Amino acid sequence: MKVVIVGGVAGGMSTAARLRRLDERAEIVVLEKGPHVSYANCGLPYHLGGVIEDRDALLLQTPGSLRARFALDVRTGHEALSVDPAARTVTVRAGDTVYAESYDHLVLSPGARPVVPDVPGIGRALALRDVTDTDRIGAAAEGAGTAVVIGGGFIGVELAENLRRRGLEVALVERDRQVLPPLDPEMAAPLAAELSAHGVDVRLGTEVTKVLPRAVELSDGTTLPAGLVVLAIGVRPDTALARTAGLTIGARGGIAVDERQRTSDPRIHAVGDAAEKPDHLTGEAALVPLANLANRHGRLVADALAGRPVRSAPAIGTAVARVFGLTAAATGWNEKRLAAAGRPHRVLHVHPASHAGYYPGARPLALKLLVDPGTQRILGAQAVGAEGADKRIDVLATAIRGGLTAPELADLELAYAPPYGSAKDPVNMLGHVADNLATGTTATLQWHELDRALADGAVLVDVRSPAEHRAGAIPGARNIPVDALRARIAELPADRPVIVHCQVGVRGHVAARLLAQHGRRVHNLDGGYLTWNAARAVPGARGSG
Amino acid sequence: MKVVIVGGVAGGMSTAARLRRLDERAEIVVLEKGPHVSYANCGLPYHLGGVIEDRDALLLQTPGSLRARFALDVRTGHEALSVDPAARTVTVRAGDTVYAESYDHLVLSPGARPVVPDVPGIGRALALRDVTDTDRIGAAAEGAGTAVVIGGGFIGVELAENLRRRGLEVALVERDRQVLPPLDPEMAAPLAAELSAHGVDVRLGTEVTKVLPRAVELSDGTTLPAGLVVLAIGVRPDTALARTAGLTIGARGGIAVDERQRTSDPRIHAVGDAAEKPDHLTGEAALVPLANLANRHGRLVADALAGRPVRSAPAIGTAVARVFGLTAAATGWNEKRLAAAGRPHRVLHVHPASHAGYYPGARPLALKLLVDPGTQRILGAQAVGAEGADKRIDVLATAIRGGLTAPELADLELAYAPPYGSAKDPVNMLGHVADNLATGTTATLQWHELDRALADGAVLVDVRSPAEHRAGAIPGARNIPVDALRARIAELPADRPVIVHCQVGVRGHVAARLLAQHGRRVHNLDGGYLTWNAARAVPGARGSG
Repeated sequence: MKVVIVGGVAGGMSTAARLRRLDERAEIVVLEKGPHVSYANCGLPYHLGGVIEDRDALLLQTPGSLRARFALDVRTGHEALSVDPAARTVTVRAGDTVYAESYDHLVLSPGARPVVPDVPGIGRALALRDVTDTDRIGAAAEGAGTAVVIGGGFIGVELAENLRRRGLEVALVERDRQVLPPLDPEMAAPLAAELSAHGVDVRLGTEVTKVLPRAVELSDGTTLPAGLVVLAIGVRPDTALARTAGLTIGARGGIAVDERQRTSDPRIHAVGDAAEKPDHLTGEAALVPLANLANRHGRLVADALAGRPVRSAPAIGTAVARVFGLTAAATGWNEKRLAAAGRPHRVLHVHPASHAGYYPGARPLALKLLVDPGTQRILGAQAVGAEGADKRIDVLATAIRGGLTAPELADLELAYAPPYGSAKDPVNMLGHVADNLATGTTATLQWHELDRALADGAVLVDVRSPAEHRAGAIPGARNIPVDALRARIAELPADRPVIVHCQVGVRGHVAARLLAQHGRRVHNLDGGYLTWNAARAVPGARGSG
Repeated sequence: MKVVIVGGVAGGMSTAARLRRLDERAEIVVLEKGPHVSYANCGLPYHLGGVIEDRDALLLQTPGSLRARFALDVRTGHEALSVDPAARTVTVRAGDTVYAESYDHLVLSPGARPVVPDVPGIGRALALRDVTDTDRIGAAAEGAGTAVVIGGGFIGVELAENLRRRGLEVALVERDRQVLPPLDPEMAAPLAAELSAHGVDVRLGTEVTKVLPRAVELSDGTTLPAGLVVLAIGVRPDTALARTAGLTIGARGGIAVDERQRTSDPRIHAVGDAAEKPDHLTGEAALVPLANLANRHGRLVADALAGRPVRSAPAIGTAVARVFGLTAAATGWNEKRLAAAGRPHRVLHVHPASHAGYYPGARPLALKLLVDPGTQRILGAQAVGAEGADKRIDVLATAIRGGLTAPELADLELAYAPPYGSAKDPVNMLGHVADNLATGTTATLQWHELDRALADGAVLVDVRSPAEHRAGAIPGARNIPVDALRARIAELPADRPVIVHCQVGVRGHVAARLLAQHGRRVHNLDGGYLTWNAARAVPGARGSG
């Protein structure tokens, strides 16, 4: 069996190494157009920032090391130009030479290409996809003084942080009204603030319209100095080679594959960023350019080629990024996507401490959960905080995979000692809130529903302490501390609906239950003052005031 | 409805607060024999060590605050002496007064009592269960100079660390051959070493036979100075009150309850450390004295009393402790317990980096997984390391609850960026190894099986680099680096079974697959040199040499 693999990074190299472990006799050829294979692409931004000082640390393997360990024929500087599926050959260019390589099975792992906006002068903008790009950006950053990062996604934010760390004046330009699109705007707002606090000039809701030799022009009319321009508005599956083979391209623009990663040609498999993945929620094709999936699917293809049964699983999509002192993480679908798809969903926010509040170093953690109101299925989750955000998202991603309902999160037995969590872990808290919502024990109101409810005549009651109320209050809120509420119910007009809120939602829940049992129509403002206040920072968001 | 709750900490107070949120009219009386309610008992050791400086930080609520918020009638200094189930009364002593309190429903949450060994002079030993105990130990520590902690469980280890932090010379005496019994010995060995490295005199495999006024005598004949003696060999359910009510006591010595936490008297519920829990694996009664379960069951009882449907779940048992710079965490069953119960189990160890190795600060993480070899069900897991141990155990505890099989751990989509994990997370690695074992792709040998296999004629091959081999090798191992193995197979006698090992098991797997495909009978030493070397530190362990 001769297997030719196009692309020598995550997906392709996972196939190659696994296949060798399963089949000592297979002929395995890896074609990589660049000069490096098996490099740590998720580490590239950190090398730019000097966090990973040693460039060689990024180069996990070389053709020589892969030959020694796995008897792989790894050819760097070899670009696959086209595929002839009938002849089962790949046309390859290596330097000035063009030749045909035959295969029994072909595995495509060509990755993705940066999306390049149609803007004058954009040719100067550099994108970060591989080690060579890193070298190029690093060289361009020397003496540049100023940098504009176009795109506020995970890579853009990591680039902004690392260019800042390198000493450049950095602006981040994002067309959307928020950074980090996998999160919803009220969850992302603290991350934009964190970037600003560390000297990044965050420009939301605007886009680059022109790249000049030392500056960029924005659609809002401003001009930003830009010795360096970095492009990070997203990627698009690299399907050029697949098209030469006549393979089916899916609805989302990636190579269409079945649950065994087989393309429309049974002799050709595809993995990684170039291939579509079935979405966990809908089963429909999706683009999920993440290393975890590339590796998993690479291994799966090796198993399939070796004639083994394979176990496939749809893609949930879990991602994390560090943003200076904060961590942002998400899994599954967000509210924007659910709303756009018209999918019923329930939203809840909690703001627990990352570990027991009485133990030093506890930091606030914002968690958001999206739940199917019919089945209680967990649709997605987001976490932002200085500590423990990645842990909670990992737990929630595992809960999604395990098919736990949102209320069942309350039953998870998570490791508790004061340095690590709470007897009721933040994830348990999500379960409690979800359970209260599912059983109708409590009714909540989202931050963006508040203005309308108040306009419709609701009374807003801040049940925090007077000191908290004085330190920052929602306009129009009347302050009745929760501990005084039982005695002061009569102060609330009996004929008007009541909205209660506290700082994070917990005391609000106590207050809401109390008032409901006294016959009041009451909603608790979900996520309390903290969620409302975060949302207020979102440009153009309702609820601001 | 009048509900009397005995015990005002985790379980009892969860019942009380939740019941009030569900029922504004219930009369709720909480009887607590001590002077405090709702204190942070898991924080007590850290107050002793000065990590939690402010004693008031431990006191989360007071009778006054609970009255204000939840209209609870909380009576500290009130000891429940006996129950008359026919009359539905509790006899209560408060100071010099004894009176009868009637109830419609009684909830018992009396907790557990320290196990006290029958040793002369043991009366001087102090146990840590509540804030008063903390004050007492703190006072006794002043000027004590030396301390002996009896018992190397989670509390004992936390006490040793915190007394050390307070400046005392501390010895830890544990009858077992390891600290932290929820872990298996080879996983616990690095924790004993960590204690020793921080100046704790760890005495394993011996016990205190006599407590003298300023010292203790051990069964191994030594005498240790002990200005202070602290007792932490475990707890036993406090069933004294339950017995006065004639309630059924279970096989494990706790109050027997059904899935609604109801005792043998339908008017009496029990929660917390005093109550037995159904084990997740067997469904049999178990003792699991953990705060998470106390809170969960406390809430469940409130729901049951309010007439709501309840969702009960068996206990998995997840625990964590910090041991100076390391974290030790475990969930489910360990190997010792599985072996003792005669339950079939497969064992696997991995030693990945806590996050991407090329990103600064990655620390080694030891993970152990116990798997049912028939169903691939996850039976338990353990983690030890400086970073990320709690996260991985939380993920694994969630996977157990969600019913994922061990190979399915490979499919988890966990949050990956270089500061947080790897594209193949340590938990994914466990899944890959489990999958290889389940499919017969690889065969492994445990550290304690090595001596026997070698005696039976197996050849041991160290496939690490010569430098690694020189730095520390298993006696009798021949060094053939994995990258040279393909060319040097002929050096291995064809008629003898081969055992390969590397540092952690990964290269050993590559080598084992290579040799197996060349027709050799081969086993990979599970967990590699690191697990073998850790096990060597276990007193009396096989595999030492």
